[in-house]
Amino acid sequence: MRNVFVIGVGMTKFGKFPEMRIDDLARSAVMDALKDSGLAPKKIQVAYFGHTRQGTCAGQRVLADLGMTGVEILNVDNACASGSSALRYATLAVSYGMAEVALAVGMEKLSTTIKGVIPPREDDLEGAMGRVMPSVFAMIAQQHMHRYGTTARQLALVSVKNHANGTLNPRAQYQKGVTVDEVLNSRMICDPLTLLQCTPIGDGAAAVILASEDVMKRLSGSVPIRVAASVLLSGEARIEADWDITVSKVTTHAANMAYNQAGMEPKDIDVCELHDCFTAAELVHTENMGFCARGEGGRFVEEGHSSITGRVAVNPSGGLLAKGHPLGATGVAQACEIVWQLRGQAGKRQVTDARVGMAHTMGGAVSGAETGACAIHILAREA
Amino acid sequence: MRNVFVIGVGMTKFGKFPEMRIDDLARSAVMDALKDSGLAPKKIQVAYFGHTRQGTCAGQRVLADLGMTGVEILNVDNACASGSSALRYATLAVSYGMAEVALAVGMEKLSTTIKGVIPPREDDLEGAMGRVMPSVFAMIAQQHMHRYGTTARQLALVSVKNHANGTLNPRAQYQKGVTVDEVLNSRMICDPLTLLQCTPIGDGAAAVILASEDVMKRLSGSVPIRVAASVLLSGEARIEADWDITVSKVTTHAANMAYNQAGMEPKDIDVCELHDCFTAAELVHTENMGFCARGEGGRFVEEGHSSITGRVAVNPSGGLLAKGHPLGATGVAQACEIVWQLRGQAGKRQVTDARVGMAHTMGGAVSGAETGACAIHILAREA
Repeated sequence: MRNVFVIGVGMTKFGKFPEMRIDDLARSAVMDALKDSGLAPKKIQVAYFGHTRQGTCAGQRVLADLGMTGVEILNVDNACASGSSALRYATLAVSYGMAEVALAVGMEKLSTTIKGVIPPREDDLEGAMGRVMPSVFAMIAQQHMHRYGTTARQLALVSVKNHANGTLNPRAQYQKGVTVDEVLNSRMICDPLTLLQCTPIGDGAAAVILASEDVMKRLSGSVPIRVAASVLLSGEARIEADWDITVSKVTTHAANMAYNQAGMEPKDIDVCELHDCFTAAELVHTENMGFCARGEGGRFVEEGHSSITGRVAVNPSGGLLAKGHPLGATGVAQACEIVWQLRGQAGKRQVTDARVGMAHTMGGAVSGAETGACAIHILAREA
Repeated sequence: MRNVFVIGVGMTKFGKFPEMRIDDLARSAVMDALKDSGLAPKKIQVAYFGHTRQGTCAGQRVLADLGMTGVEILNVDNACASGSSALRYATLAVSYGMAEVALAVGMEKLSTTIKGVIPPREDDLEGAMGRVMPSVFAMIAQQHMHRYGTTARQLALVSVKNHANGTLNPRAQYQKGVTVDEVLNSRMICDPLTLLQCTPIGDGAAAVILASEDVMKRLSGSVPIRVAASVLLSGEARIEADWDITVSKVTTHAANMAYNQAGMEPKDIDVCELHDCFTAAELVHTENMGFCARGEGGRFVEEGHSSITGRVAVNPSGGLLAKGHPLGATGVAQACEIVWQLRGQAGKRQVTDARVGMAHTMGGAVSGAETGACAIHILAREA
């Protein structure tokens, strides 16, 4: 397996753009990534497009519009982990020598099709009875409060932190700070999760270009950002009787695999974009990923350890809560943020001397399993 | 790159099963493939699921139902080439040493959601104006008749042949023979294509298990079927002014790449499952894939060269026209048919001493390009 480097990133602003075609958003992200890389479009040998509801052959539409025809293109769908799945397969393509240059794109337009909660499938009986995402994460929050004495205020602080980070990110869907009281007094969605503790519906796209070391070295001025780990797993079995829902077994497992691949430990991570679809999700995933001990997630955010100036900057982009969460776009957008942080290009939200970053997504509700997919990547600055 | 072998295949009957869940169809195909391979489910290290409208994380649902959790799963969508894209990525996973055993599944249920023509996307302006699949292939047929004197009877003979083959395939959606007159007198869909010249709407699933040579050799009684070539490309640019629509540039290109990979020529192919979504498609693809010269497609079928006893048996399974075409399932089902033919397990439709088989799918309508995706595989019996 060869070393793989990120040589270009691009991302649209996230938000609600009902008047725009998703293809135009995706094309814009791809063009930005190409410009960032300095490569001509014809250098792209294989492309992976992550999205969940942008129609069949969406990737082919986007690249054909750019005059990129006759290349290998795969559309991948792993729910909210679609973009990170695309990133993984672009990484593998370069790593295994299938291509010198590979493109990963995440794209999603939800604003004209979804209002509020993403509806369950017709044949999803658990979903029909109310096991939709807000209730899943509300149960996780309740259980964490019960087991560890986590407070509503600690949960709210995740939202306060991520919205504060969003004010520093010109590409974030929400760029307005919120207070603990505003979070707690916003509309109740599913106790204890209020509206400002839930990720919004939105549109957007992001693109990452990966290349071999040879190609990377020929590009002048490129800061070498290496993909140090890439993991994709489906969720572990969910056995109701003894299942501690505050633990994401698959996140723990995937994170450990990623640390092993990278030869790193949680303390080596300077910046982490993780899947904060709800405040409770970020809280438990800081535990699952080893940044703090089990049960400590509430105190971890409260004591500022996950702030931009903390031990590990968690979701400096604003995360899913404030940057937004156009499903398929998220995993690739996370990688863009990590790259900007490692290059020192993150503007007002820059994490000081960030050298190692991690990205984590979870995707999909699957009966009998804790989740559909979990993807983790570690990126490292090499110079 | 390592040699990759097919060690298990499974497929449901194709047809309309409105009362069945797609997950149950897919699970049945996976279980058949596992049984055929002799492997335990836990041996599957990575799985690729091709489908176009079975919901996000459909693959995870199917494997979780079988107790297969915590594995790498990717759902892929390349329209009608989704199944063959899954097959390609399972092949690559073993070839590059990412896994010893990989699973490819194609699955689709259309009977409860689609009636007649697959509707174009809301923002597909060409589709809204009538550029849907039957009209595309009707134009191809008209152009072929104009350029080469191809007759309506020759087009109808493709349907007659494939329906005759379908009568020999217990898994085919249609198992009733048709005459030239019945084909020509069936309802006109888009001149010159009548109803019996169009692939039907249907449901079904298929699964293929691929493995390294080491694993294959440990399985007693396994006939070694090697993946000799695997190609996936997006369509070439469509430039209206000088575009000869009877030529699929991407099929020609992908077929040549596949022949090069395999070190073979068209004359080496004993059996070919190709994308006969309409009679005109099979007719031109026998030319595009090099089985006969440009313009000779009509005579090729008329003279029996593509019959089960001909030079190259084209669509002995009944093809998309008679076996059926549950979009994402097709590419994997084609591979099942090729494997049965190469193993000598194809029953009444057995091609005598078939040693090399080819499978070809086309997927998706993309504005500005001839198609979304084209995938070609060559399988070869090694003993």
